Amino acid sequence: MFGAAGRAYDRALTVFSPEGRLFQVEYALEAVRRGTLAVAVKSNEDVCLAAQIKIASPLMDIKSIDKIFQIDEHIGVAISGLHADARALINYARVQAQSFRLTYDEPVRLNMLTKAIADLMQQYQQFGGVRPWGCALFFIGIDASGTQIFTTSPSGIYRSFKAYAIGSGEATAREYLIENYKPDLPFEELVNLTLTTLKGAIDEEATKETIRMAWIKSEDKKFHMCNEQEVEESLAKLV
Amino acid sequence: MFGAAGRAYDRALTVFSPEGRLFQVEYALEAVRRGTLAVAVKSNEDVCLAAQIKIASPLMDIKSIDKIFQIDEHIGVAISGLHADARALINYARVQAQSFRLTYDEPVRLNMLTKAIADLMQQYQQFGGVRPWGCALFFIGIDASGTQIFTTSPSGIYRSFKAYAIGSGEATAREYLIENYKPDLPFEELVNLTLTTLKGAIDEEATKETIRMAWIKSEDKKFHMCNEQEVEESLAKLV
Amino acid sequence: MFGAAGRAYDRALTVFSPEGRLFQVEYALEAVRRGTLAVAVKSNEDVCLAAQIKIASPLMDIKSIDKIFQIDEHIGVAISGLHADARALINYARVQAQSFRLTYDEPVRLNMLTKAIADLMQQYQQFGGVRPWGCALFFIGIDASGTQIFTTSPSGIYRSFKAYAIGSGEATAREYLIENYKPDLPFEELVNLTLTTLKGAIDEEATKETIRMAWIKSEDKKFHMCNEQEVEESLAKLV
Amino acid sequence: MFGAAGRAYDRALTVFSPEGRLFQVEYALEAVRRGTLAVAVKSNEDVCLAAQIKIASPLMDIKSIDKIFQIDEHIGVAISGLHADARALINYARVQAQSFRLTYDEPVRLNMLTKAIADLMQQYQQFGGVRPWGCALFFIGIDASGTQIFTTSPSGIYRSFKAYAIGSGEATAREYLIENYKPDLPFEELVNLTLTTLKGAIDEEATKETIRMAWIKSEDKKFHMCNEQEVEESLAKLV
Amino acid sequence: MFGAAGRAYDRALTVFSPEGRLFQVEYALEAVRRGTLAVAVKSNEDVCLAAQIKIASPLMDIKSIDKIFQIDEHIGVAISGLHADARALINYARVQAQSFRLTYDEPVRLNMLTKAIADLMQQYQQFGGVRPWGCALFFIGIDASGTQIFTTSPSGIYRSFKAYAIGSGEATAREYLIENYKPDLPFEELVNLTLTTLKGAIDEEATKETIRMAWIKSEDKKFHMCNEQEVEESLAKLV
Amino acid sequence: MFGAAGRAYDRALTVFSPEGRLFQVEYALEAVRRGTLAVAVKSNEDVCLAAQIKIASPLMDIKSIDKIFQIDEHIGVAISGLHADARALINYARVQAQSFRLTYDEPVRLNMLTKAIADLMQQYQQFGGVRPWGCALFFIGIDASGTQIFTTSPSGIYRSFKAYAIGSGEATAREYLIENYKPDLPFEELVNLTLTTLKGAIDEEATKETIRMAWIKSEDKKFHMCNEQEVEESLAKLV
Amino acid sequence: MFGAAGRAYDRALTVFSPEGRLFQVEYALEAVRRGTLAVAVKSNEDVCLAAQIKIASPLMDIKSIDKIFQIDEHIGVAISGLHADARALINYARVQAQSFRLTYDEPVRLNMLTKAIADLMQQYQQFGGVRPWGCALFFIGIDASGTQIFTTSPSGIYRSFKAYAIGSGEATAREYLIENYKPDLPFEELVNLTLTTLKGAIDEEATKETIRMAWIKSEDKKFHMCNEQEVEESLAKLV
Repeated sequence: MFGAAGRAYDRALTVFSPEGRLFQVEYALEAVRRGTLAVAVKSNEDVCLAAQIKIASPLMDIKSIDKIFQIDEHIGVAISGLHADARALINYARVQAQSFRLTYDEPVRLNMLTKAIADLMQQYQQFGGVRPWGCALFFIGIDASGTQIFTTSPSGIYRSFKAYAIGSGEATAREYLIENYKPDLPFEELVNLTLTTLKGAIDEEATKETIRMAWIKSEDKKFHMCNEQEVEESLAKLV
Repeated sequence: MFGAAGRAYDRALTVFSPEGRLFQVEYALEAVRRGTLAVAVKSNEDVCLAAQIKIASPLMDIKSIDKIFQIDEHIGVAISGLHADARALINYARVQAQSFRLTYDEPVRLNMLTKAIADLMQQYQQFGGVRPWGCALFFIGIDASGTQIFTTSPSGIYRSFKAYAIGSGEATAREYLIENYKPDLPFEELVNLTLTTLKGAIDEEATKETIRMAWIKSEDKKFHMCNEQEVEESLAKLV
Repeated sequence: MFGAAGRAYDRALTVFSPEGRLFQVEYALEAVRRGTLAVAVKSNEDVCLAAQIKIASPLMDIKSIDKIFQIDEHIGVAISGLHADARALINYARVQAQSFRLTYDEPVRLNMLTKAIADLMQQYQQFGGVRPWGCALFFIGIDASGTQIFTTSPSGIYRSFKAYAIGSGEATAREYLIENYKPDLPFEELVNLTLTTLKGAIDEEATKETIRMAWIKSEDKKFHMCNEQEVEESLAKLV
Repeated sequence: MFGAAGRAYDRALTVFSPEGRLFQVEYALEAVRRGTLAVAVKSNEDVCLAAQIKIASPLMDIKSIDKIFQIDEHIGVAISGLHADARALINYARVQAQSFRLTYDEPVRLNMLTKAIADLMQQYQQFGGVRPWGCALFFIGIDASGTQIFTTSPSGIYRSFKAYAIGSGEATAREYLIENYKPDLPFEELVNLTLTTLKGAIDEEATKETIRMAWIKSEDKKFHMCNEQEVEESLAKLV
Repeated sequence: MFGAAGRAYDRALTVFSPEGRLFQVEYALEAVRRGTLAVAVKSNEDVCLAAQIKIASPLMDIKSIDKIFQIDEHIGVAISGLHADARALINYARVQAQSFRLTYDEPVRLNMLTKAIADLMQQYQQFGGVRPWGCALFFIGIDASGTQIFTTSPSGIYRSFKAYAIGSGEATAREYLIENYKPDLPFEELVNLTLTTLKGAIDEEATKETIRMAWIKSEDKKFHMCNEQEVEESLAKLV
Repeated sequence: MFGAAGRAYDRALTVFSPEGRLFQVEYALEAVRRGTLAVAVKSNEDVCLAAQIKIASPLMDIKSIDKIFQIDEHIGVAISGLHADARALINYARVQAQSFRLTYDEPVRLNMLTKAIADLMQQYQQFGGVRPWGCALFFIGIDASGTQIFTTSPSGIYRSFKAYAIGSGEATAREYLIENYKPDLPFEELVNLTLTTLKGAIDEEATKETIRMAWIKSEDKKFHMCNEQEVEESLAKLV
Repeated sequence: MFGAAGRAYDRALTVFSPEGRLFQVEYALEAVRRGTLAVAVKSNEDVCLAAQIKIASPLMDIKSIDKIFQIDEHIGVAISGLHADARALINYARVQAQSFRLTYDEPVRLNMLTKAIADLMQQYQQFGGVRPWGCALFFIGIDASGTQIFTTSPSGIYRSFKAYAIGSGEATAREYLIENYKPDLPFEELVNLTLTTLKGAIDEEATKETIRMAWIKSEDKKFHMCNEQEVEESLAKLV
């Protein structure tokens, strides 16, 4: 009558279904998929991240709507899913990054940082008394290994991508990226591809108010959060 | 027969529904919506906060009915939802504000204070053994970044607004604000807009007994709780 | 078939109902309403508290039936609901009051004392592993702010009143107080109003054995527990 | 179909019923009512306690059947309900009494001792992970306030009486006491009334084997546990 | 349909039934009643304990089947119910006995030792997270108070007897003891009565292999575990 | 409809059934019975242990299939039931044996070692938060008391045997042992009886690959794990 | 209607079914079986491990898809099942291996390392508050005992193999290995057999992108992770 879900394997964190699935983790992923769309694309030189924001009310102070955050000088992140959960993980990531700098006197490598977050998320899906984290983090960075795009999800898995999209409309965006991604795009085309992918997969109009964008270039390896003017100029260049 | 709620995803804090929702957090928001209305409006110079109070009995000592509280010299808050929960968070906010002063020797910035409260609220919606906080806090303040309006809710999310309304009648009030808000209102018109919005969205008559009001002006950056006479005079100026 | 209660939102402390209600707290309030009636009235000078006691058996040592207690020199309290719960809170209140004296070398203000109790009660309605306190405390006192009547309930809310009634028959008593309360009653009329309100709202006869009374006058600011003779004389003055 | 009990409000300690009742506490009281009868009567000078014992088997060592215990030189107690629970509380009471002597260098007052027991019992009906105590303690004593009879029950309430009866047949015994109690009985009549009340409310024959008796006289203020001969002589004096 | 048990009052340790019963404790007593029979008889001079053992398999090393154990020089015990539970309590009893010797430099009195065990058993029927002990201990001993027979059960109650029987067939054995017990039996008749009672209440044949026996005589006050020859000789003396 | 099991007395460790049974312990015994067969036989001089192993796959490294383990120089053990549980207990046994050597400077006696394991197993069937151990240990050894065979099971009971069998086919094997066991078999016949019993009670062919064997002889009191050649030679001697 | 599973024995970790099974452990094994296939084959000289990887999206950075990991100089591992769980165990294995080196100044033996992991996994299937590990580890190594293949699973069991396969398609692969395995394959044929087995049991094409391979040769005893070119060359040699 209900399927496996109806047989109550999905109410508790620490219970496998007969098929070896963890329903609570899968449900947490639904919270991620309901978030607004974020898109990241990297070349060997640069990496660009853009995301849509939902302005729930025209009364909101638009500057206070956060979707993309800086973690360290060379690392940024877009979040999807439960905003408050993501904020707590961002705090955690920033502390990890600074702690790495203090210990080794060099910037943290993004794969190590992402692994630290993912390890924490793994624990929240194996132990009782908590629920899994209802969010995904979508990192960009440049470190000793070059440009990087990493994601981590409620299951505790993390992956590296050449280009990727997470959130509402991610299927459309990923298809577009698969068809149009080229590894060695010059910076302007990289930004172009990022924004075109985002614009094509969302229902609302893409404007300087509804789009947040950030990039890191190899020339300075510094996370740069774009201001409204930069977003507007970049949008204008799209055909 | 019952919908998702009837399938018991909504009884425990640490359980996602198949749609990735946290029902207990949504139910806590209902407690917020059942509170009396509070309205805040800011200009670049000043910020004003007004709220209705419910006098459950004419035997009550009206002065003891609290809806708006001072947190620090430059910050005030209106509360919605479970009064006792809100009081506990106000205690927490006051300690945070003083602790910031002691550590950095300067007044706390409102976004940092709100984030501290929101971080606490986040934890109460991820861990077992507790329930989410059944209240929202509605802060006004003036700090180094200028005039500020912040809200935080049981989900652990916090947002900044130019003008906003929370509580019973919030839909009407928000619509009115959207239509009538202008960014650079002189002080008198700011108070006017705040009170007109509040008055238009509540069923009871607005009097010096049923309205509480507070403001912060840029000239002294001090939270000022209005007395009955000030409320009466401000109400008299409304057409 | 059962209404919301039948859908089991009311079995656990840490669960909101879909309407944002906490049923266990509401049920605890029922325990309060089933207690015997207590009435308090204050003027600017004096405050009087009277309460009915239920003599479950003529074999009881009437003096041992406690309904009104002294907390400190200047503060008294009547209790409603589960007697043993209330006794534990009275212990707590007495320790708080003495601790305040030791720290600040002055008598505790009643609003601060009531807040301390209410803060404790708030915690018992948010955390698992306990039940809410099944009682209400009904304080009278005179402090630096003048005469005071405060109540606190299982929800963790506390309120201040000019005159109030709690317990079985509270609706009748409150109505009578609303109609007859005047702010500046001389002491004898204050006692009169307190006893008349109590007498009119209880089913049993009011006698020196079934009524407990206490007052605090501004002239000495000392809680005075009336003896049987004083109660008898005061009852005799009622028409 | 089941009434409120059937709706499962009575399975857990920390749950109020919609009527504000704590069923588990009420069920614990049933364990008390199923115990054998104990009767106590006091005058201004003396206090007498008698109780029936059930000899489950003629093979029992009658001397080992305990129903009345000495707590301190001037205090004794009869128990009703779960014997093992009561024994644990007696241990606690004896330690409290000795601890008082060590601290204040004087015998503990019975109302303070009873309150200490009752406070412990209160906690066992508010916190999870335990069940309420399934017994009542029935104290007699003589202290600075004179002769005393105190009871404490699973609810955490304690009361003082002039004369009282607890256990199987308590209704009959209490009625008899109400009709026949006089405050200033000479010692012999006091013992008489105690035994007559007990004898009239039990089904078995009252003999030196089935009745335990103890008294405290003002002349020496010492708890005296009667031997079989004293019980026999006292029984013989009854008409 | 099910009676009270079917209404789930019997699944959890810390729950009273509406009749004030603790079903889990009563079920634990069933485990005791299913054990093999043990019989003890005492005179003023001596005390004898005999018990049947069940040889589950002829492959068993008969000497390893324990039913009677020595606790201290002057105390022995027979066990009924869950063997592993009883063994853990025997460990506890031995430590208590030695600890008493070390503290007071004299052998422990049996009533104090039994009370220590019973106090432990009381706790296991009031607190959550454990189950009651599924066994009874049946002590014999000689101490300053003379010969002693004590039992303690899952309820936490302990009792003293002149003669007693516990285990499968206990009803028959107790009846026989009631009819035939005499307080001042010489040693041989004491052993005779013990064995006759045991023999008459079990279904299997009583042989030196299936019967274990122990005694304590006043002449040396030492627990003596009989060897097979002594058991055989004693059995031979029965008519 | 379901019998007692269907009425849910078998879901939790700490719950007695109305018949005084602990179903979870009985279910754990089922895990033991599903293991492969092990047989042990002792004479006054020697003791022999043989067991079948299941080769789940021909790809397995046969030497890595463990069924018989050495605990100390003079003690060995065969395991039945959940392999991982048994391994944890073997760790525990080895530490106990070495700890005994360190403390007393002599080899541990097998009954003391078995009791230590059984005491641990007893605790896992009385406390919540764990499940009983799903395995049985089948010890052989030679110590100061001579040759020894001991078993311990999930119930926490341990027993000593002259010859015994545990696992799938145990009924057949035990019957054969009862009929053919003689106490003073010379070593070769002892080995013969052990292997004949094992061979007759298993479905698969007994070969040097599917049979593990170990013995301890009085001449050196050392646990000897047989190699494939020894097993093959011993099997060859069976008619 | 449901079978044993439907009777709820499979919802909690610490509950045996009436057949002595632990369903949650069996369900965790399902998670393992749903992973991609890994195959390992050893000779006396060398050991080879190959595994398929699933490229969920062409946007993924293929190098970041991990299936085979190095644990120490001489040990590698392939994982099956929940990726995040496996990663946590790999962390644990690496720390164990280094800790062994530090303590004993020699490389850890693979059977000891595997046992350490398996002991941890055993605990997660006996204690409450957690779920079993949803993964299997598939180790290869060369140590003092020669070439080694070990597996460990959620049940806490670990086994050694000559050749083995784990994951989706394991049945086909194991059959192929049984038919074709020979103990003393030269290195090239060993690699050949490993890849042929893997290729024949997966649905997707085997390419340098979808196959990961590693080997350890006796000549240097160092774990060697193959690069794409080596994989391609090895695949080319297959007929």
